[in-house]
Amino acid sequence: MCLTFWLSQLYRGLPRSIGRTTQPVWDSLSRNLVLSSQRRIPEFSSFVARTNTCGELRSSHLGQEVTLCGWIQYRRQNIFLVLRDFHGLVQVVIPQDESAASVKKILCEAPVESVVQVSGTVISRPPGQENPKMPTGQIEIKVKTAELLNSCKKLPFEIKDFVKKTEALRLQYRYLDLRSFQMQYNLRLRSQMVMKMREYLCNLHGFVDVETPTLFKRTPGGAKEFLVPSREPGKFYSLPQSPQQFKQLLMIGGLDRYFQVARCYRDEGSRPDRQPEFTQIDIEMSFVNQTGIQNLIEGLLQYSWPNDKEPVVVPFPSMSFAEALATYGTDKPDIRFGMKIIDISDVFRNTEIGFLRDALSEPQGTVKAIRIPEGAEVLPIFLKANRNWNSSVAKFIMEEQRLELIRLMEIQEEDVVLLTAGEHKKACSSLGKLRLECADLLEIRGVVLRDPALFSFLWVVDFPLFFPKEENPAELESAHHPFTAPHPSDIHLLYTEPEKVRSQHYDLVLNGSEIGGGSIRIHDAELQRYILATLLKEDVKLLSHLLQALDYGAPPHGGIALGLDRLMCLVTRAASIRDVIAFPKSFRGHDLMSNAPDSVPPEELKPYHIQVSWPTDSEAEKSSLNHPHHPES
Amino acid sequence: MCLTFWLSQLYRGLPRSIGRTTQPVWDSLSRNLVLSSQRRIPEFSSFVARTNTCGELRSSHLGQEVTLCGWIQYRRQNIFLVLRDFHGLVQVVIPQDESAASVKKILCEAPVESVVQVSGTVISRPPGQENPKMPTGQIEIKVKTAELLNSCKKLPFEIKDFVKKTEALRLQYRYLDLRSFQMQYNLRLRSQMVMKMREYLCNLHGFVDVETPTLFKRTPGGAKEFLVPSREPGKFYSLPQSPQQFKQLLMIGGLDRYFQVARCYRDEGSRPDRQPEFTQIDIEMSFVNQTGIQNLIEGLLQYSWPNDKEPVVVPFPSMSFAEALATYGTDKPDIRFGMKIIDISDVFRNTEIGFLRDALSEPQGTVKAIRIPEGAEVLPIFLKANRNWNSSVAKFIMEEQRLELIRLMEIQEEDVVLLTAGEHKKACSSLGKLRLECADLLEIRGVVLRDPALFSFLWVVDFPLFFPKEENPAELESAHHPFTAPHPSDIHLLYTEPEKVRSQHYDLVLNGSEIGGGSIRIHDAELQRYILATLLKEDVKLLSHLLQALDYGAPPHGGIALGLDRLMCLVTRAASIRDVIAFPKSFRGHDLMSNAPDSVPPEELKPYHIQVSWPTDSEAEKSSLNHPHHPES
Repeated sequence: MCLTFWLSQLYRGLPRSIGRTTQPVWDSLSRNLVLSSQRRIPEFSSFVARTNTCGELRSSHLGQEVTLCGWIQYRRQNIFLVLRDFHGLVQVVIPQDESAASVKKILCEAPVESVVQVSGTVISRPPGQENPKMPTGQIEIKVKTAELLNSCKKLPFEIKDFVKKTEALRLQYRYLDLRSFQMQYNLRLRSQMVMKMREYLCNLHGFVDVETPTLFKRTPGGAKEFLVPSREPGKFYSLPQSPQQFKQLLMIGGLDRYFQVARCYRDEGSRPDRQPEFTQIDIEMSFVNQTGIQNLIEGLLQYSWPNDKEPVVVPFPSMSFAEALATYGTDKPDIRFGMKIIDISDVFRNTEIGFLRDALSEPQGTVKAIRIPEGAEVLPIFLKANRNWNSSVAKFIMEEQRLELIRLMEIQEEDVVLLTAGEHKKACSSLGKLRLECADLLEIRGVVLRDPALFSFLWVVDFPLFFPKEENPAELESAHHPFTAPHPSDIHLLYTEPEKVRSQHYDLVLNGSEIGGGSIRIHDAELQRYILATLLKEDVKLLSHLLQALDYGAPPHGGIALGLDRLMCLVTRAASIRDVIAFPKSFRGHDLMSNAPDSVPPEELKPYHIQVSWPTDSEAEKSSLNHPHHPES
Repeated sequence: MCLTFWLSQLYRGLPRSIGRTTQPVWDSLSRNLVLSSQRRIPEFSSFVARTNTCGELRSSHLGQEVTLCGWIQYRRQNIFLVLRDFHGLVQVVIPQDESAASVKKILCEAPVESVVQVSGTVISRPPGQENPKMPTGQIEIKVKTAELLNSCKKLPFEIKDFVKKTEALRLQYRYLDLRSFQMQYNLRLRSQMVMKMREYLCNLHGFVDVETPTLFKRTPGGAKEFLVPSREPGKFYSLPQSPQQFKQLLMIGGLDRYFQVARCYRDEGSRPDRQPEFTQIDIEMSFVNQTGIQNLIEGLLQYSWPNDKEPVVVPFPSMSFAEALATYGTDKPDIRFGMKIIDISDVFRNTEIGFLRDALSEPQGTVKAIRIPEGAEVLPIFLKANRNWNSSVAKFIMEEQRLELIRLMEIQEEDVVLLTAGEHKKACSSLGKLRLECADLLEIRGVVLRDPALFSFLWVVDFPLFFPKEENPAELESAHHPFTAPHPSDIHLLYTEPEKVRSQHYDLVLNGSEIGGGSIRIHDAELQRYILATLLKEDVKLLSHLLQALDYGAPPHGGIALGLDRLMCLVTRAASIRDVIAFPKSFRGHDLMSNAPDSVPPEELKPYHIQVSWPTDSEAEKSSLNHPHHPES
């Protein structure tokens, strides 16, 4: 029930257009390596054969005898050779005199991407031959000795075109893809940012890094948990989706402040941009409230934020779930741009337009709209209505309503207005999706709405504690998880109108992506039992250890988990979380390099007392419909 | 073929007897918390309700208004209450005046181990009531307000006796066990030590912390790998025993220096002091040789070593595998004490003692002995011979041989000599075991051979590359793993006498326990293929991705992995690795708290296309013989 409406003038006040992504080059990588350590530059050449890295050499090294190890990036007319290591590129002069024939032979015959070690002197490039675009462009290496450490066979493709290849090829030859500027940058930045997080948590604030088990038992409702057969017939471990129970048990155990860079597992079948194993920065504290956790996280991100990015501004703004839904149609609003949802129900109270009148007569019925500034120019054919409404509906809108809408929504010429009618939540939600799709369309046409250099954090708070179950709305399920504490002001409603209880859950949103979530937990055993058994009708037996633990002096506690893969993806502006993970799985959960998962001979299944239930032909067919055999990624 | 022999004077030159273990107390915990951070003391009370920790209060805080949160450790006559947090204990004075009746009620009625928050003033203890044994013993808290945060139900046992309970009980109520001084100390020390390792690797030496997948595919000979069924019929992931392949692929990908605190998995069924999941400090470097890795590790351990322990002395001594076997009868010698194995074959070349003569006539036949100084006093009944030889054999030893033995072994009165005859390796190995058993016996009697405060590191090097397979000695298997590079001096032997080839593998031994191992890897694809396919007869297909990667410019590389659980066990002098892990499994692989592994309803197995093969009665009986139902732990 959406329709394009009408039109007005250009979007104003937007930041100027800047490139969507900036390709990091060796220059920014070396700069990053230096900046990030703050205290001092790490010794990159300790313990090894080289004296220096290729990328670090400058005029200040002139005259030094150096030994370098690296890959042959390219060769020019058998006179120059560019050597590459993780730190950058350096030019090597291939000696031409007879006495160095063996060195020349090695350096001229080794195929590109072969590994060589060279020793020589750092000299100035001849005047006019400096390369100001190259960090090492003032110098070159006059080689004395060279050794071929390993020859490279002919590559299945040119390595410089590699990133233009399909992602499947990149994943299959991941070890080659890792040599790219981009992957080196992403993985090193990830390592450095996590290191700074550890410094902040461990060294500055006394957190204890505790490793929790990943071979655990299934949790209630843990349908997405991978199973691990044990050697006891019929008994299985389960790979947990998060260390939730363990972090709470650590607080009950008096650890006070826990964190872990935790590997988590979730079996969601085939879903784009999800990984079966992923990493979260997992945090829990005793004697803390919601503000305490929020302050901690703001400080953590500010401290660990890369120096080559726009700094993080704290405190982060905060918004209730209700406001986020009403204004942005989502619980993870991208607040870098406007186009907010406006309730225009009152304008149409007496409308004669049938579907608006019908919608408004329902309980919770509303009419909502968003205004797309300058939309007319870029959204001429935008129409995704359930029924085929188009702007011809405009003729049913009376002049009075039209003027009221223009006033209410500050509509200018050339604006597009998208309008929807229906139940509040659904109406907001569909306009929220349209808002993002319009932003995509506008940006394709060159309008910059979402400055990719900006990092716009937002806390979303005051979520409902429960949602009605989709399959049976008379029953409740946890909006997040059953250990979330109710909002102190709403506790009395638990026993009368539990669906109205707000929780002490908080989500952290960055540029419209959820990058973290957490809550103050229930520390009262009776309350936890009531919620689990009476309200959620869960099998309490599976959680008896946690309920018992709450009886024995559990402190008030709360925590949060940040999704590291998603966070790094946003920080590096990568196209996919696969670009910030060294060895990711394809979206069908395959390791395309090693071919995992793989078949296992029946005798290896025997110790685990399991056997394969091969699907019947009809089942197999059904399954192949769900997972058609299209190429990966 | 061992026999007690004869006797001499007291062991000399040993360090004086000191306590076997020293129980860390709150004092050393607070000291450790302060010392370890070096740069500054972490802010333990940021973001939370308290102003201070219980354990940090001193005379310097006199007059300060403080808010504390903690557990009631005990109460004395409703006048004093000792409050505990992770940092230590502090005495709280329960107010007795009428106006504070409600505070008194809260503090007097809350059961022990209840959680309370108190606010009040830090005051001096009255003269004569100071407790010099308590770090906070100069002061106490005059309470103004108190709040019961959570009441503790009656515990199933007295918490102070808890550590004396069975380990099964400790594991079942792990959250209570974690409140003990010892577990707090162990987990915090582990966190701090790992943090310092990260600083050394990441900040000082430019290592990149890379997370590698744990859902992988089975490796050749990976019979100890847990399986994880996928949603594709008959396809399984496998939980790898180490990131070995990934770390090598990262080097081929040009990452240069990788480390990871890596979770590893090994399914060994029931074995004492092993865990199905464990942690290793996993390291790999390019362009490095054996010395480089050894220097790195020596620096790493020295840098990260706890300040409250005897410092680490570098460089570590080094010993060949051959020497370790010949001198200590093991590849992980405890060099804190002597009692070395001495070859006394020459003394008995012309002996009339039958079993010695027989042994010496065999190929590799030897006679070996160890001398137990002062052994007579403590080993009067020590006799574990295959045949029941006892000292009466002495009468067959001729005077000449007797004198030669005394000379050769420097035997004194009251010494015991243990003698064995047989094939070199077996003879050394059995004397090696006896040496350790004698040390145990001597120490039970109060002789201190192995100073527990000393940390005696040792590199063991020059291992053989292959061992003959136990089940078929004509075939070879890797002594460590098939990616280990041969010793450069022995490469020619690979094609003629491969069983004689030494490897570039190195083990790190601490006080007789192996705490790490690594090697320089094969970076030549042809050599790797030859070893895998021709010498080891492995299925090369399972490793085709790695072999292919070696073809495309693999740099020379090597690495090491330190077993973190074992290392922490030695550092903290814990009785078991379970004492340095927050939530360990029992030796049968069970989580006694949550009851994992657990049954799973058949419908949850369906998406994974597996079903349980219930063992037949006779199989079940056989299995219960292998795993008798004795109590856990």
